[in-house]
Amino acid sequence: MALIGILGGMGPLATVDFMDKVVRLTEASRDQEHLPLLVANLPHIEDRSSAILDDGADPLPALLAGIDMLNRNSVGLIAIPCNSAHHWYAQIRAHSAAPVLNIAEICVAAVPSTARRVAVLATGGALVSGFYQRALAERDIEPVTPDETMQPLVADCIDEVKSGDLDAAATHLETALTMLAEEGVTMALMACTEIPLAAQRIAAPPLALIDSSLELARATVKYACERGWNRPQ
Amino acid sequence: MALIGILGGMGPLATVDFMDKVVRLTEASRDQEHLPLLVANLPHIEDRSSAILDDGADPLPALLAGIDMLNRNSVGLIAIPCNSAHHWYAQIRAHSAAPVLNIAEICVAAVPSTARRVAVLATGGALVSGFYQRALAERDIEPVTPDETMQPLVADCIDEVKSGDLDAAATHLETALTMLAEEGVTMALMACTEIPLAAQRIAAPPLALIDSSLELARATVKYACERGWNRPQ
Repeated sequence: MALIGILGGMGPLATVDFMDKVVRLTEASRDQEHLPLLVANLPHIEDRSSAILDDGADPLPALLAGIDMLNRNSVGLIAIPCNSAHHWYAQIRAHSAAPVLNIAEICVAAVPSTARRVAVLATGGALVSGFYQRALAERDIEPVTPDETMQPLVADCIDEVKSGDLDAAATHLETALTMLAEEGVTMALMACTEIPLAAQRIAAPPLALIDSSLELARATVKYACERGWNRPQ
Repeated sequence: MALIGILGGMGPLATVDFMDKVVRLTEASRDQEHLPLLVANLPHIEDRSSAILDDGADPLPALLAGIDMLNRNSVGLIAIPCNSAHHWYAQIRAHSAAPVLNIAEICVAAVPSTARRVAVLATGGALVSGFYQRALAERDIEPVTPDETMQPLVADCIDEVKSGDLDAAATHLETALTMLAEEGVTMALMACTEIPLAAQRIAAPPLALIDSSLELARATVKYACERGWNRPQ
């Protein structure tokens, strides 16, 4: 039996939300038809966005230690429900024995082919890193990044989810989404796994949202169920 | 840094719910103030209730294999958010290097000292095992177990949560709670970790409910925070 490894804790509520999606996406009528998971919820990994933006402590050694822990336990696949950590995706992939899904590639692949302009809601670090903008540009889609008025709202939303204040997070997110809609943007990527927890509290978002965490969960479940990890012999 | 080990997957949604409670009970303003967790979500462990009731396959070897996995990764504490698995608590505790919290002792300790009669909502296996009834009796509290009309409603509720149908689960649970209230019972233990997921969908339960999963989460967070596992040096 192969285990799905999840490198999480970045942040913890986003990891819980990702696991919830994996479980609910798995067709099962009893426990024994569900997928086995090994979840390393390691919240003390240094802040990814600060490391990219502000010369903060390097999280890569702790990220690789988490990858090592999962591989020592013979996981067959690794998913990392943190977008900003994918700034180091090449190093992580090269280091891991098990394959590692790439949340940004998977999220951008979920954008409909008719889309021409798509906003990227992410940490400041992920935006400076630029991997989402590059993945969109490869599909000839124009990435729209929040301006200096809007990005603090997104950053506040993310921080508030990490501290457990989902109502404040939803208020900040809704203001940012309204600003985007007023600029004529019709679709946004929730390219940070905290954001969907805030979006759940917005009754009618003013533009279409694509959830990186949900897309990663879909890819994870598909990979594992195709290999029969839900029904071991 | 010590990790909290969680032996889960029994069932998977109950494990996600337990993790959610642990995260939300932890006072933290950023990721790095949260608790590190290693979650072995192993849904293929044989059905606990069937093993107790119907001579089904023995889950103990798989339970101990999960305990071994957690101990190999140097967890400092183990929590098992499955009540029925506590039928084998003595064997698990004797086998584990890390201490293992006992969900039934913790849940029964949360019953107010004024309580005289308390219902036990659990799998048929846990009821036949009798560890909840014994823990209540030790506190001079009369355990009320569902009769043969009511227990199938509780069992259906549990099975429906495991298959993801929370609305059906809530309907069956609410019928059982109403029957208990009509019999004059004023308090019930949700002594199966699936049941709180159904109870969340009942707007006004007709009697007081004590949530074994929430009490285990409180004890887990208290144990770890007292030892500073949320703020490693």
